[in-house]
Amino acid sequence: MEDKKENLNRLFNPRKIVIIGASNRPGSVGNSLVKNLINNHFPGEVFFVNPKRQTIAKQAVYHQVVDLPDGIDLALIATPAATVPGIIEECIRKKIGGAAVISAGFAETGAKGKKLSSQIKKNIKRNSFRVLGPNCLGFIRPHLKINASFSGEEAQSGRVTFLSQSGALGAAVLNWAKQHQIGFANFVSLGEMLDISFGELMDYFADDPTTNSLLIYMESISKPRLFIRAAQSLSRKKPIVILKGGTSTAGARAALSHTGNLAGNELVFDTVFRRAGILRVHSLEDLFNCISALAKQNIPLNNRLAIITNAGGPGVIASDILEKNQGQLAKFEKRTTKKLKTILPSASSLKNPVDLLGDATPELYYEAARICLCDSGVDGLLVILTPQGVTDAEGAARAIAKLKDAAGKKIILAVWMGEAEGLKTLHRAQIPAYQFPGQGIRTFLYLYSYHKNLKNLNQAFSLPPTENDPRSKSAAGIIRRAFKEKRAFLSEYESKKLIRAYSFPTLDFRLAKTAFEAVKQAKKIGFPVVLKLHTTETLHKLELNGVKLNLDSPQEVRKAYDDIKKGFLKQFPDSHFAGVLIEPMLSHRYELFLGGKKDSIFGPVIVFGRGGIDIELTNDIVTELPPLNPLLAENLISKTRIACLFTGFRKQTKPDLKKLIFLLCRFSKMLIDFPQIKEVDINPLAVSGSCYQVLDAKIILDLDCPLKPTNPFGHLVIPPNQSR
Amino acid sequence: MEDKKENLNRLFNPRKIVIIGASNRPGSVGNSLVKNLINNHFPGEVFFVNPKRQTIAKQAVYHQVVDLPDGIDLALIATPAATVPGIIEECIRKKIGGAAVISAGFAETGAKGKKLSSQIKKNIKRNSFRVLGPNCLGFIRPHLKINASFSGEEAQSGRVTFLSQSGALGAAVLNWAKQHQIGFANFVSLGEMLDISFGELMDYFADDPTTNSLLIYMESISKPRLFIRAAQSLSRKKPIVILKGGTSTAGARAALSHTGNLAGNELVFDTVFRRAGILRVHSLEDLFNCISALAKQNIPLNNRLAIITNAGGPGVIASDILEKNQGQLAKFEKRTTKKLKTILPSASSLKNPVDLLGDATPELYYEAARICLCDSGVDGLLVILTPQGVTDAEGAARAIAKLKDAAGKKIILAVWMGEAEGLKTLHRAQIPAYQFPGQGIRTFLYLYSYHKNLKNLNQAFSLPPTENDPRSKSAAGIIRRAFKEKRAFLSEYESKKLIRAYSFPTLDFRLAKTAFEAVKQAKKIGFPVVLKLHTTETLHKLELNGVKLNLDSPQEVRKAYDDIKKGFLKQFPDSHFAGVLIEPMLSHRYELFLGGKKDSIFGPVIVFGRGGIDIELTNDIVTELPPLNPLLAENLISKTRIACLFTGFRKQTKPDLKKLIFLLCRFSKMLIDFPQIKEVDINPLAVSGSCYQVLDAKIILDLDCPLKPTNPFGHLVIPPNQSR
Repeated sequence: MEDKKENLNRLFNPRKIVIIGASNRPGSVGNSLVKNLINNHFPGEVFFVNPKRQTIAKQAVYHQVVDLPDGIDLALIATPAATVPGIIEECIRKKIGGAAVISAGFAETGAKGKKLSSQIKKNIKRNSFRVLGPNCLGFIRPHLKINASFSGEEAQSGRVTFLSQSGALGAAVLNWAKQHQIGFANFVSLGEMLDISFGELMDYFADDPTTNSLLIYMESISKPRLFIRAAQSLSRKKPIVILKGGTSTAGARAALSHTGNLAGNELVFDTVFRRAGILRVHSLEDLFNCISALAKQNIPLNNRLAIITNAGGPGVIASDILEKNQGQLAKFEKRTTKKLKTILPSASSLKNPVDLLGDATPELYYEAARICLCDSGVDGLLVILTPQGVTDAEGAARAIAKLKDAAGKKIILAVWMGEAEGLKTLHRAQIPAYQFPGQGIRTFLYLYSYHKNLKNLNQAFSLPPTENDPRSKSAAGIIRRAFKEKRAFLSEYESKKLIRAYSFPTLDFRLAKTAFEAVKQAKKIGFPVVLKLHTTETLHKLELNGVKLNLDSPQEVRKAYDDIKKGFLKQFPDSHFAGVLIEPMLSHRYELFLGGKKDSIFGPVIVFGRGGIDIELTNDIVTELPPLNPLLAENLISKTRIACLFTGFRKQTKPDLKKLIFLLCRFSKMLIDFPQIKEVDINPLAVSGSCYQVLDAKIILDLDCPLKPTNPFGHLVIPPNQSR
Repeated sequence: MEDKKENLNRLFNPRKIVIIGASNRPGSVGNSLVKNLINNHFPGEVFFVNPKRQTIAKQAVYHQVVDLPDGIDLALIATPAATVPGIIEECIRKKIGGAAVISAGFAETGAKGKKLSSQIKKNIKRNSFRVLGPNCLGFIRPHLKINASFSGEEAQSGRVTFLSQSGALGAAVLNWAKQHQIGFANFVSLGEMLDISFGELMDYFADDPTTNSLLIYMESISKPRLFIRAAQSLSRKKPIVILKGGTSTAGARAALSHTGNLAGNELVFDTVFRRAGILRVHSLEDLFNCISALAKQNIPLNNRLAIITNAGGPGVIASDILEKNQGQLAKFEKRTTKKLKTILPSASSLKNPVDLLGDATPELYYEAARICLCDSGVDGLLVILTPQGVTDAEGAARAIAKLKDAAGKKIILAVWMGEAEGLKTLHRAQIPAYQFPGQGIRTFLYLYSYHKNLKNLNQAFSLPPTENDPRSKSAAGIIRRAFKEKRAFLSEYESKKLIRAYSFPTLDFRLAKTAFEAVKQAKKIGFPVVLKLHTTETLHKLELNGVKLNLDSPQEVRKAYDDIKKGFLKQFPDSHFAGVLIEPMLSHRYELFLGGKKDSIFGPVIVFGRGGIDIELTNDIVTELPPLNPLLAENLISKTRIACLFTGFRKQTKPDLKKLIFLLCRFSKMLIDFPQIKEVDINPLAVSGSCYQVLDAKIILDLDCPLKPTNPFGHLVIPPNQSR
């Protein structure tokens, strides 16, 4: 393990590099590698391997790896895919630290390529050799003068570390960055991630003093546990911005209403990123805008923006976009308004957005901006300039640039509409500047949401006690029995007993195996009652007509029993009818949904929102990862529309928020205690006055999960204080 | 009226122009006006008025308006606000056609300025003099070599007519347009719109042969009827794109659940624009992107996009954004795949998005694009290029440019990432081109939504018969009685009777003024029944505890009656208790909402969606304008989430879609027949099996509306076949 780490370090900090497949032919990959290393004045030694050449870049060429001198740290391999496993074999024998495999033609091309990949994998498993790629661009570390890539684009030296799964996209980013004065601490193209993954690189660059923020383009994930742990640890120190490309999310929210379908893949990724303190953006433009803003500026602590402009229209548009996206126009302190009044022409608006009018001078821009930044109710400032007859766009840009250092914790963004020169001045001054108001506003709000993620990440966890409370033993008993019977579906009776062990309030529920018994139980419970099919066979009782509500008399109960039985046997003529579940009838106005599912990549996920039989029609659900503490639970609740029940809605009795928070935490604990739960749906969790009642619950088990997990924390997200 | 039109034409087609307030002082507005007119080689005569100057631009200056020669068509006025009413007075006496009032200091500045505005208004009301502005930039008509503005930006000659309420924003657009090779047929800055409004200008430029599309920046609207009529008429010939700035929409969907609040201002604007065939965008960036695409290209007939790219990453991102925004990746015909196979390298993806790989040549781009465009399942093509070592970005741009004419009805968009030169080539070739995939995708989908609006606009109306059917007389009686009693709130009893006259199914509802009577009626109806407070006083019975459900016996009815009475008298001790409404209890699973409100600007608006007592929690409503025909009604329904009930949802009985469409059309007719209705809420419209039942209805009248409207079509939107 230590060797693996050491070799990773040799790979990224090489003193001796060999290019295998080096070439003199202009335009070839082998030639680009040579030129990029030499032209960037790599301070160490470079060797070349090519069986057919004598000299490259005026240097003698080795014909095979075995002839190379000892002590080489990094091999850049650009030979045909089929030759690569053999070459790596030789590199290992030569005790080279690792290789960046530039060559394409591996797993991405089909069966033949996959075989090559697994050959390499098998080989490096037995020793400490490291592989970046294959099918990657290589990497660039401008501070160390290492350009170990065949990229046509140079990376300027700077403080952003950029990890990109796609090489071409990486090159486009480098190109764009150059135009916007953004420099890089590191650029790594990951390619197939046969060995080196995002998580490991995040860990590696966490300690890199030249890196102040991380930019990731991801298409898929390998080693998810490592990824989350690395992200949680890193993001408290350095911002991480991610753009994840993936197949469409269409369908993620569609289909039947159980958690398995509700929390589609992309939603889980959203949750994971949020919980790991990562800022997720959804377009290249936002990726660029955020990274440039993060590289240049502070992160706003709240969403209150001041806007100053020399024209009403763009100010109005900016305000609209801000409020549409849950931002706020800052309300100025009296002091601010007073100060603005002393400098602004009489026709100006003193309210936010501040209209400086069409003839605003650079001095007026400067003064107005300075005053707004002093307001304690302002978290960020957007300065808008539109070219008008007398506008000195360049001068105003210089004036705003001067404020950069005075801004303190507040962020300054600029929109210079159609003023290319002014934009350049602002870029040079490290002020994020845009052509349109929308981009500025979006960036501001992205940065604020990043701040919120961080706050979540940093708050102290107060996990419920981890020792098993006695009641969870009864839960374990239910699961053990189902495992014994190799039964993945628990009956409603079992499901309710299990969640009751985790403090969920359930109604007085009883089983009855005959109509006679049903009537007897109903009398004990008290009319009206509900009868439900008791089964472990199916999950959709409603569609089987297996639910009879509001039964008011023994006659009705008897008839309902017979109907349910008849319906069941009609559908499953060869099955055993196991009876019914009887509960009191509860009238209630609102229904919540609480679900959990085991994501194939990330493990347990919690889904909460408005419930009922038609969640997908209401579409009011949110997701989170366990463990929850009360604050996280409250945050989760507050993200739904149904949350307005708790702030008082139409003069109705407020449900007990604290109780719900407690239940969410207990639910989270249950998912952690029992990794054997594949899916659980509590739906509806009825809201009746200020109380809650579980009216239906379904649990599906993962029979492939060991009954006694080796690791009691067999889930991904671990509290920060235990993270490293 | 004819004179007004004639003078509008003189204003915009002047042969003789006078600049009042002309100046030699550089940087002054008066000087900019002079320079703009002369430097653009205005072919007619120009005169100057300035009491203090002798010559301007080597020409003799008049000292007062009265000295000017006759036959002047247009005055550009740039004198202090206070002098303007007098100057206009003089212009009128001189029989000048109209004025563009550049001066600021009118209604926007407060009471004093407002007085000046109304002075001018009063003055021009009595004659046919026309006024553009005040507080505007003037106008530019490049084809006629008229630059009657003080804009620092020139407008290149082209085919877009741009109407902007904000002058500064107009200037920014001109600046941006220059960079993107977009030319203008006309640019008009409207300012305060004291006289000339959007509607009139749209009518005016509808017949302008140089205009092929209209771009509008609007902050507020004057003369809404004229606006809608003009838009409906124009948009069938030329696309209209609108960006409306306005105060925030926050709160538009919040607050209590009746139509008055649900359909906030911005939602109504949305509906009006959509119905008038206008494409509404929400940011300057989208405004620019759409107008440039509209100026250059065709409108896609469907949302199926083909993507070709030389790098996987950006293709993935583009696909994600497309599907997230309800676009579709085109599915290729077999023929297309076959043809692509013959030209692409073996490792390429033959599916959409088509990956040409990193070394794609301009020829390969050309061939792949040509093949995709031939596919009948493709409505548009997005070509993505990222710079990679060997990429000939400029050559590929030229290759794609060649396809422009071959594209037929299909739209081509390009994304040249970070390749400024290639972008310029594409702009020159009239191919909309962007730096990022997101912009291209958004533009494509905007254009498609524009196509949908047009389809709605163009479809034949089949209005329900306009003659009064006998039943609507009973509706009129209810309204007449309330008017007589000066009563705006109808009781539930009256409201239900009114909508029953419009074919809405209601349960057997009866009134009872004593508990004894209530029991008698309940027996006639049959148990269980519902009792509701009968009143015209309040709209929220629920909050008064004025609704008692599920009453099963005479005893329960009696108790409910007493409870309701007690509750009412406790709240309103001095009021008369008018009794209760009795209905059968209906059990149902879904609730719809159908509402109408009279918007203060646009008149009647229909709101439809999922109902219940907590619509704002579900947030599933859509709006439309009457009149509806079956197709429009069906479109309206299909935009809600609850619409999935009609396609079969969880194996339940499908409600009768045709019947609901019929009800929506009848509802629309009711709103048209009775402009006296200020607000109507049918909520819930219960869905019970395949049928509908109105469970509650509320109507509020507009007592200021005449009982017999002079115009039976006293609403705004008129069917296209009657529009002009």
